[in-house]
Amino acid sequence: MSSEIFKVIKKKGKKRLGLLKTSHGYVETPNLMFVATSGSVKGISSIQLDQWGIQFLITNTYHLYLRPGLEIIKKAGGMHRFMNWKRTLFSDSGGFQVFSLSKLRKFKDDGVIFQSHIDGSYHLFTPENNVDMQRILGTDIMMVLDECMEYPVTFEYAKNSVKRTLEWAKRAREEFTKTSSLYGYPQFQFGIIQGSVYNDLREHSSEELQKMDFDGYAMGGVAIGESKEYIRKVIDIGDDIMPEDKARYLMGVGEIDDIEYAVENGFDIFDCVIPTRNARNGALFTDGGKILIKNSKYKDDFTPLDPTCSCTLCKNYTKSYLHHLFKSQEMLAGILATEHNIHYYSKVMKRIRESI
Amino acid sequence: MSSEIFKVIKKKGKKRLGLLKTSHGYVETPNLMFVATSGSVKGISSIQLDQWGIQFLITNTYHLYLRPGLEIIKKAGGMHRFMNWKRTLFSDSGGFQVFSLSKLRKFKDDGVIFQSHIDGSYHLFTPENNVDMQRILGTDIMMVLDECMEYPVTFEYAKNSVKRTLEWAKRAREEFTKTSSLYGYPQFQFGIIQGSVYNDLREHSSEELQKMDFDGYAMGGVAIGESKEYIRKVIDIGDDIMPEDKARYLMGVGEIDDIEYAVENGFDIFDCVIPTRNARNGALFTDGGKILIKNSKYKDDFTPLDPTCSCTLCKNYTKSYLHHLFKSQEMLAGILATEHNIHYYSKVMKRIRESI
Repeated sequence: MSSEIFKVIKKKGKKRLGLLKTSHGYVETPNLMFVATSGSVKGISSIQLDQWGIQFLITNTYHLYLRPGLEIIKKAGGMHRFMNWKRTLFSDSGGFQVFSLSKLRKFKDDGVIFQSHIDGSYHLFTPENNVDMQRILGTDIMMVLDECMEYPVTFEYAKNSVKRTLEWAKRAREEFTKTSSLYGYPQFQFGIIQGSVYNDLREHSSEELQKMDFDGYAMGGVAIGESKEYIRKVIDIGDDIMPEDKARYLMGVGEIDDIEYAVENGFDIFDCVIPTRNARNGALFTDGGKILIKNSKYKDDFTPLDPTCSCTLCKNYTKSYLHHLFKSQEMLAGILATEHNIHYYSKVMKRIRESI
Repeated sequence: MSSEIFKVIKKKGKKRLGLLKTSHGYVETPNLMFVATSGSVKGISSIQLDQWGIQFLITNTYHLYLRPGLEIIKKAGGMHRFMNWKRTLFSDSGGFQVFSLSKLRKFKDDGVIFQSHIDGSYHLFTPENNVDMQRILGTDIMMVLDECMEYPVTFEYAKNSVKRTLEWAKRAREEFTKTSSLYGYPQFQFGIIQGSVYNDLREHSSEELQKMDFDGYAMGGVAIGESKEYIRKVIDIGDDIMPEDKARYLMGVGEIDDIEYAVENGFDIFDCVIPTRNARNGALFTDGGKILIKNSKYKDDFTPLDPTCSCTLCKNYTKSYLHHLFKSQEMLAGILATEHNIHYYSKVMKRIRESI
């Protein structure tokens, strides 16, 4: 069964030029989502992102469930309206956050109990209620709840975890099928392949997920501390184990060389905090490499960061000024740097698409 | 001698509609400067301020002298170029910051020694070197170094302080006359009337300053902790003791009712951190009063903050969303709120001008 929402338009080797279409517009792939964890890309309004031609974002169920809470988002009419984002919006299930951010977590038969990182209160995520939550978010594409293993884990641990994640995926798919979208436009659901660095587990995971006929497939639990070699070992099998006619999403991978490598191995969609988080820490990307603007050698460098870039920073300010803003902890430092990195990543993704 | 840079265009009672002209454009008065302490209005780029029609800003010698340091600003070609601000720029001498921010300060015959609030290092400001510093900043209008008394002080203390500030003003004026601008356009210098809440001291201070023939006159040391009654007692005498044909600047006063009161009493120029600082703390100004957006009653208020406002926030987002951004400590909260308060204050100042 071919995908309702995704088409491969052109192939070059394993590389795929694709088009993802949702009720909120199209996304040219390969492409990377900037992260709007709590309904905002840090420092940048949704209006600006739209003006810059950004085609999709990803938000997070764990964060939004805890704050502002789903009743607020339901009253607002879903996340698109709450954050005034008119284009495609993904939501992560929050599985990763439950296993990385929350203070305590405990499996119960039907899901996972965790303590809020904000106020210590207890909450239960199940595969079913997590789908219901993402129905309330009204995102175009939702991810299933998965167990995000740490790195490293033993094969035995990984095997049991994959088993649980597959059971959860089945229940999430059933809940998704039984329920409808709340705001009059269709939603879609992606499954998540897990398996740590054990590729036979990932292969099994993918096979089982495909039986559930998701609208797209993601590779999860990658780039969580393992070496580049292991990251690439997982990327290597993507094209072999993921279906040809559905979107392929490599979660959380955002180093540009890894993205390029993953595109060469047939991946379509990426998300990462690297462009935005690095910007706030003073790391700016250019074709000539990463510029750590807080370095004192930039204090009297009155040239633009990247003369080829069309962002507010590169068109109007010098490295010296940005260095000063960071040293003075001015809000504008992170804002200008974030705009630059968003522009840079958008340019790189466009260049990748044009190479196909 | 009439002012080279300022003209009163129209009067209504004591209210004055004026025009301040510098090499970097005109400023319609009455008007308020937003504060770019370290060369940036917090959260907003100079490009955006220019697009919004903001006509002038004020920056601070104390902060810029300590960071990035004057050699950087000199190499950049002055503050206009460093921060890419093409319109009129004032600089405060930093007198207020020496007396409010620095860890230790001690008068020496020729000036004041103080300790940096950043790293504890010792520095000397004299009336002369402070003028030289502002020559390096290249601001259109510089302020003389003054002693900013605390509130309250005794009459005796105030009298001696005014004496010192007048001596400093004389030396600053001489240094200004002896030196030239560095970047090919003229600079101007304003004197600062002090005297705490003692109006006869302020009258004396103004008389003496006028003998030095400054390009404009400011009322300093107001709104530093005294009651509204005392603030207004000082404002009351402004029209009587300040020259008719020069710009009159009321420093640091930014509550809208005080600004209106001061305009009614013949003041032209204001500066205050209230619009921008309050924004970052979640206090937003509207004609209906100040909205404290973090208040829980806004959590499900899906109406715009101010339907008559044309800022990004009011055109695109709800109070509920802004409430959420503040509660989640998202950078975008302060950015959107600052843009709103800048728009609001600009509207109020325009309305004030139109009333004359």
